[in-house]
This record gives sequence, structure tokens and C-alpha cells, in this order.
Amino acid sequence: MSATSAFRFTLELTDPGSAARVGRWQTPHGTVETPAFMPVGTIGSVKGLTPDQLRQAGVQMVLANTYHLALRPGAEIVADLGGLHRFTGWNGPMLTDSGGFQVFSLARLAKLSDEQVVFRSHIDGALLELSPERAIRIQELLGADCIMCLDECPPHDVTDERLKEAVDRTTRWAVRSREAHRRTDQALFGIVQGGTNRMLRERSAAALLPLDFPGYALGGLSVGEAPEQMYEALEWTVPLLPADRPRYLMGVGRPIDLVESVWRGIDLFDCVMPTRNGRNAMAFTHAGVLRMRNAVYQRDERPLDPLCTCPVCRQFSRAYLRHLFLANEILGPVLLSWHNLAYYQQLLADLRQAIREKRAIEFRAVQLAGWGSSP
Amino acid sequence: MSATSAFRFTLELTDPGSAARVGRWQTPHGTVETPAFMPVGTIGSVKGLTPDQLRQAGVQMVLANTYHLALRPGAEIVADLGGLHRFTGWNGPMLTDSGGFQVFSLARLAKLSDEQVVFRSHIDGALLELSPERAIRIQELLGADCIMCLDECPPHDVTDERLKEAVDRTTRWAVRSREAHRRTDQALFGIVQGGTNRMLRERSAAALLPLDFPGYALGGLSVGEAPEQMYEALEWTVPLLPADRPRYLMGVGRPIDLVESVWRGIDLFDCVMPTRNGRNAMAFTHAGVLRMRNAVYQRDERPLDPLCTCPVCRQFSRAYLRHLFLANEILGPVLLSWHNLAYYQQLLADLRQAIREKRAIEFRAVQLAGWGSSP
Repeated sequence: MSATSAFRFTLELTDPGSAARVGRWQTPHGTVETPAFMPVGTIGSVKGLTPDQLRQAGVQMVLANTYHLALRPGAEIVADLGGLHRFTGWNGPMLTDSGGFQVFSLARLAKLSDEQVVFRSHIDGALLELSPERAIRIQELLGADCIMCLDECPPHDVTDERLKEAVDRTTRWAVRSREAHRRTDQALFGIVQGGTNRMLRERSAAALLPLDFPGYALGGLSVGEAPEQMYEALEWTVPLLPADRPRYLMGVGRPIDLVESVWRGIDLFDCVMPTRNGRNAMAFTHAGVLRMRNAVYQRDERPLDPLCTCPVCRQFSRAYLRHLFLANEILGPVLLSWHNLAYYQQLLADLRQAIREKRAIEFRAVQLAGWGSSP
Repeated sequence: MSATSAFRFTLELTDPGSAARVGRWQTPHGTVETPAFMPVGTIGSVKGLTPDQLRQAGVQMVLANTYHLALRPGAEIVADLGGLHRFTGWNGPMLTDSGGFQVFSLARLAKLSDEQVVFRSHIDGALLELSPERAIRIQELLGADCIMCLDECPPHDVTDERLKEAVDRTTRWAVRSREAHRRTDQALFGIVQGGTNRMLRERSAAALLPLDFPGYALGGLSVGEAPEQMYEALEWTVPLLPADRPRYLMGVGRPIDLVESVWRGIDLFDCVMPTRNGRNAMAFTHAGVLRMRNAVYQRDERPLDPLCTCPVCRQFSRAYLRHLFLANEILGPVLLSWHNLAYYQQLLADLRQAIREKRAIEFRAVQLAGWGSSP
């Protein structure tokens, strides 16, 4: 299968009043309607949920973390077992990150050079190394539909000089990643870095565009900067990217961030928030966040979100969900993760519909009003 | 609704070569094919599984623990929220125990008298009391289809004198339970006690039969005695019970125990084993128990049990399940609990079929051979 035939990104419509757009992204494991949100299946499962439950929540595409899977069970083992799709039972589109973000945040960094990054496993402290070539090799073994170049992810508060070094190293690594990548049934994305520095974002984009990636990711955002700074960075960066390729904002975010970022031209998202917050008893709803341990829900027979039609809202009351959390029952985190994913998927589906019907601006206003100031 | 119309136990067939029998037990929330196994939904959920997943596993009836629910969230709250069926989302037949077993095992006993038992909550040490009348009242508030008389559950190694006291107190409490019970849409079962003492089992049964309960449970078994002692106790006790009422062996057990007890005339079981062991990485299969953390499964692409058609065996490999446990992913305990329940349900369905087809004896032999000496 050639890369040309396996992938196709079709822009259906661009909003006349914003940079928002609706598209269809064809991959070897199915088509993704964009803008789309991917739940995070860190170590090969979206915590607590089966592939069937993901489908029922409306999930189209799932992300898995290369760093975690390379440590456990190991990329070679996943390959021996037929790749990530077969291993995890999720047979829809999948994406893996490069492992870079976890190496720079979760692991203990030992040595960073142009050649590679050396780090210690957060599990057992073992000394490991990751190079652009190895990151590609691991992702080829894992076998996701969409894979990422290794990038350097500095903290958001580094000096501009340090940030520039990271941008340039990310460019050099992108060149090597592109050269190392062999599988034509995988789309390799470049990652634009540069933090909230406009000049560096432009420098990064300008350097990556000639490499002609089939899609571009934006890294180094939602790492501690204010939301407004992130939105501003999108406004500078997105217009530099080719309109005919998917744009993926990595690690974002809150419902409001999705709406604001789609508004600024983003097509693809991933974030642990719906599942991680679900495990911590926080429910996303049209009326904002509910904290399900709160005593006000003790006798509340209503569903989490009366406007939601997900399996959780159809079957269970707030009172029951609160009880599950207070009694430390596994089903509490499972059900709240499930609802939150369904809420995110419905939000994106509604957004796509609103863009198609040329009412993106009203939709945005209604959502923001519903969530209040802090959704 | 009168108790007569709400419940009906129909004996379909009794095995010519054993005491095994097949029946249909009609309850206000549906009909249970017997012999049947109930998973335990301790605090109002079968840990980690949704009602839909229980249905998919073939579950017909669910047990919930009165002791746990009375502590959290409280019986009055469950009643306010429409009762256990509505609260938990399980709309099929349900059974609650009386709370006695937990009071005598889990809680710290403060004072036992004929009037009531005083104990300390295992959660916060609060001093609480349970009388036969209160146990009935709580179970009426919870609203399960089948409920239990409060019984005294002494340890298995007490003196015969102490055991006789417990039997007689259980009888007096059964009389009071019967008098206190008002709801006609609930079947109240008496509980035969007496440990592994034949005379006391006979004494208990003889005292309870005149109370004319619509079903009888056997308590005080599977509490530490050898399996052979339990089977022997069944052989003495079951023939004393009316053939036209369901017989429920409480808290049992391993797959082999189910087969041996059905053989001796039991219709109904509950046990935490399939779910608790599933959470601890133990899978029940036709070839015996698999311990899924074992390194031998690292690259094992086979399903847990090649003879099982449950959703877990249809979708996931042993290698993936092992990975989930090693990576401490919630989905591991969820999936193994799910499979184990499906395995138990399939075992009972196969048993019913074998009894119907007059090949119970061959079925028993094949199962025992498959499991080896220690299934």
C-alpha cells in the first residue's frame, strides 16, 4: 500500500468567520471526521474502558504512548503479537507519539546530544536511549496509522536561546526521522516547536515545511503557559501550515481549549484530561465541571448531564456515581471516564455540525456561556 | 402483587442418577434458570463491570450485601432513590443477604444477645446494631427480589454446644424475621445452620420447615471446613428441604464446588471468587486456573480459554491481559472479572443442559478431568 493511497485528507468546508474547518481524514484503519479528539491509551488501554465502550462513546481514533509501550511490554513484543491494533483490540485509526515528551517530562534525563537523548526509565531507573531513528523504529514496530518525529520538548519557562536550540534540534531530528521512516502505511507528522515565541514558531515551521510531511503537529503548548498565550501561538503558527494537511495540537485540552483551538484551525487533539479527571471524580458537562464526591449529589437522581445521551447518562444517577466514588468502587472511575469521553466526542461532533451549518460563532458563544468562566 | 403471583419455582427435571435438578424461578424482575450463579455486587456494583457487561456474561441474578449498603450509602437513601434496581441500573432479579455474615466476620462484634447483635462498623468503628426486624426493614428498603433472615454465623471451629446455640438463635430470629416481613414482592428465605454437624443441621431444618419459607438457604458452609465436609453436609441437609422450593448454598464457590453441589441438589449460588480472583490475575478456564502474571504468557496469542466465547476471549490475547496486569492497568482486573463471570455462567448453562439431556454424570467427569485435581 502506498502512502498516497493509504491516507487522504479531504477538507470539506472552512468556516467563513474563523479558521475552523471540517474534514475527513482517511487512514488504513478507517476514516476520521475532523476536528477530532483522541483519548489517550497510555500503555495500550484507555484506562478501564474496552474498545467497544470507546466506540459507544463515539471515539474515532486512539493515541498510545511510545515511551510507555517501549518500556512495557516492549515494541518488539507488540510487533510479534501483530502490532498495536491487534494487541489492544482497537481496530480503528491509532496514533503514537514519539516518546520525546515523556522522556523530557516523566523520565530522568541523563544526557541530551544531537545524536540522541539518554534517560532513566521512570519504572526501574534503567539507562535507556532514544534517537530519531530509534523512535521511528519503535513506532514502526508498534504499527499505529499516524506516527510522530522525535522532538525536543523543553519546559515552557526556558530562555529563548535554549528554546531556539530545541527548535533547531527538533528540525535536525525531523530530517533524520523522515529519512529513517520506511512503512508506507503510516503517516509521519513533523512537530512544530517554539513555545510561545513567535519568531521561533515561524523558524520551526519554515524549516519543517520543505520536508513535506503529510501532516503537522504543534508541540510545546499546554505545558504551563496561560491559555491566552497558547491561543496566540496558534494564531501565529496555524496560518503557516499547509491548509490541505491535518493539524494536530498535542496534549490539549479542556473543552474550552478545543473550541478555541478549532476556531483557530486545529483538526486533531489528544489529552488525558477526560479520563484522568474522570478517575478523580470530575465530570465534564454542558453546565461545567461537576465534582462527584460533593454531598449535594447524595440524593440527586438526575444524570450527570441532562443534555448527554451517553450510556452512563442513560443509566445512572449522580447519586449512584457519587456513591461509587465514596465507596472506592472501580466502576466509578470507569463510568466517569466513559461519560467524559462521550462528552468530548459529542462536543467535537456538535462543533463539526456547527461549522458545516455556518453557525460556529453562535456555537462557541453558547458553549462558553454554559461552562461559565471556568469550564 | 401477592407473593404467590410474584414468585413461582418450577422444577423442570430432576436427574435420575443424582439429586441435580433444572428449574425456572420466576421473580418480579424476571425468570432465573436454575441451577444459577449470582455474582456479588457488594456495595451496589459488581466491581468494575456495568449491568450491560453482566448481561453479556450471561448473568441472570445479582447479589448485593446488606451490611455494606446499610453503611454506604444507607438503606433509606437507596429507598429514596427508587430501590436497588433503579439505583444500580441492574433491572434483573436481585438478592440481598441479611448482613449477618459480615457482622460476624468483617465487623468487630461488641455484644450478641437474643434481642440483637451490636457491632462496630469496619469503616469508621461506629457502634451499630442489627436485629432480625432491622435486617428485614433494611432489606425492604433496598428492595431486592429475594431477601434473607438474619442468622447467626459462628466460625467453623466452634464447639458443638456453641453451634447449637447459634442454630437455635437462628431459628428464633427466623420466626421474628417472618413476622416482620411485609413486602409481598419479596421472597424471604430461611437459612439452615449447623456447620458440619449432622444432628444440628437436622435440628435447624426441622425447626425452619414449619415456617414455610418460599425457599431455603444453607449458611455456615465454605467457611473453612474441607470441601468433602461441605459436600457431606449437603448430602445430609438437602434431602430434608422441600423439593418444590429453591435451595441456595451461600458463599460457594469454586467451579468444582458448583458441580459437586448441583449434583447434591443445590439450585442457587453466590461467591466473590470469579471477580475477586479475576482482580488478582487468576483466570478460570476449562483447563483449570491460569495465573496471568506468569511469564509464560508474554507472547501467548491465544485467548484465555479457547473453549470460551465470551467478549474477552473473542477480543483479547493472554499476552495482552498479562501486559495489563504487569502495567497495573484497570482494564486487566475488569476484563478478567468479566471473563470469569462468563465462565461461571457458561459452566452453569452447560450443567443445566447436561442435566436436561441426562448426561450429568459424564459432564461432571469431563469437567473434573479438565480441571485436574485443583481447578
